[in-house]
Amino acid sequence: MKKEQDSPEDLLLALPKGRVADEVLPLLRAAGIEPEAEFGRPGSRKLRFTTNVPGLEIIRVRSFDVATFVAFGAAQLGVAGSDVLMEFDYQEVYAPLDLRVARCRLVVAEPAELASSDDPDRWSHIRVATKYPEICRRHFAARGVQAECIKLNGAMELAPGLRLCRRIVDVVDTGRTLQANGLVEVEHIADCSARLIVNRSALKTRPESLGLWIERLRKVVDGA
Amino acid sequence: MKKEQDSPEDLLLALPKGRVADEVLPLLRAAGIEPEAEFGRPGSRKLRFTTNVPGLEIIRVRSFDVATFVAFGAAQLGVAGSDVLMEFDYQEVYAPLDLRVARCRLVVAEPAELASSDDPDRWSHIRVATKYPEICRRHFAARGVQAECIKLNGAMELAPGLRLCRRIVDVVDTGRTLQANGLVEVEHIADCSARLIVNRSALKTRPESLGLWIERLRKVVDGA
Repeated sequence: MKKEQDSPEDLLLALPKGRVADEVLPLLRAAGIEPEAEFGRPGSRKLRFTTNVPGLEIIRVRSFDVATFVAFGAAQLGVAGSDVLMEFDYQEVYAPLDLRVARCRLVVAEPAELASSDDPDRWSHIRVATKYPEICRRHFAARGVQAECIKLNGAMELAPGLRLCRRIVDVVDTGRTLQANGLVEVEHIADCSARLIVNRSALKTRPESLGLWIERLRKVVDGA
Repeated sequence: MKKEQDSPEDLLLALPKGRVADEVLPLLRAAGIEPEAEFGRPGSRKLRFTTNVPGLEIIRVRSFDVATFVAFGAAQLGVAGSDVLMEFDYQEVYAPLDLRVARCRLVVAEPAELASSDDPDRWSHIRVATKYPEICRRHFAARGVQAECIKLNGAMELAPGLRLCRRIVDVVDTGRTLQANGLVEVEHIADCSARLIVNRSALKTRPESLGLWIERLRKVVDGA
């Protein structure tokens, strides 16, 4: 349901769907934010939720969209993986707090049989499938490797077996998906985790209300 | 499971997840292609499936990725919405057959209260949220409207209510999602439907095996 008019003091927190939200919810609860019951209902198609805090609502969007909603000031607060923040690099997004959950690694992987005789230091021109074309371009440009980065939205692990490319850049948690597809990590790009993000303009105009939530969550994370 | 070695005569058909696949499956069956039982199992995480046809396998990927897998020759055949084909405009993708299912419209929508006093012919500079930034840019450039197209991966219908933008470009089927969010169509960009797509190079090197499936599906569609 669309609200007719938001109060200028209302705050909107953008959360991503999936695993990150599951790991972040206990932190939000410890900081005093309890979403309405519908938020946790599997299969719910609702996108906007009230909370126990008057004037604080939550929207649930794709993980890649959280940073966009916050960058354009549609949400003042958000939770996004550092992989997403690296990919978009929005100037309007300020990430004051590492929530230290939803940890993963951003890596380059290739088929095990290729890796056994391959030396990444010798790459000059490669093709890579990835959800993160900007990170991919920057990483290989910094290494002096010319990389054709093909954007895929999912199922990266299929690409080398189908000869779309021989390498992928993806986030890895346990490594089981790579293993099941005969792939091994050959380069580490970054360690990632969920971050609290804030719209910079909103932080300037409403330092008290936003600062309150940053500080509450900082205490929760430091005490954890 | 990754196959060790595909025969050069093996064919791979890329299908999208979700509604398009549900509507296309009956056509594939009528043309003689029956995927293994696991294909229809809800919640299955499998990505690659055998069929009753020796040497013909199916991969299930995101709708935006079907065109990419076919463009790079990782799959020789695919089914993609014409919205996806318009967005990517890959030269290597040939779309010989309109499957006439999964029909929808690509439209510009805005809040009903804005539309009542708004004249699209007077737009000069607008901001639009969309899954289709390329279509959006081309559409408004052709109309002489300067459009800032913000890519979102989902939940477009939230954007106007949160003042991310006032207009969205999205595909519309029944129109219920727009209505539930207080939005109305103000411009029609294109009618869309599912298309059979083929990799152009594969069609040159394997005209018989690919031509067979194009013709079988053509007969099914013409008889429907």
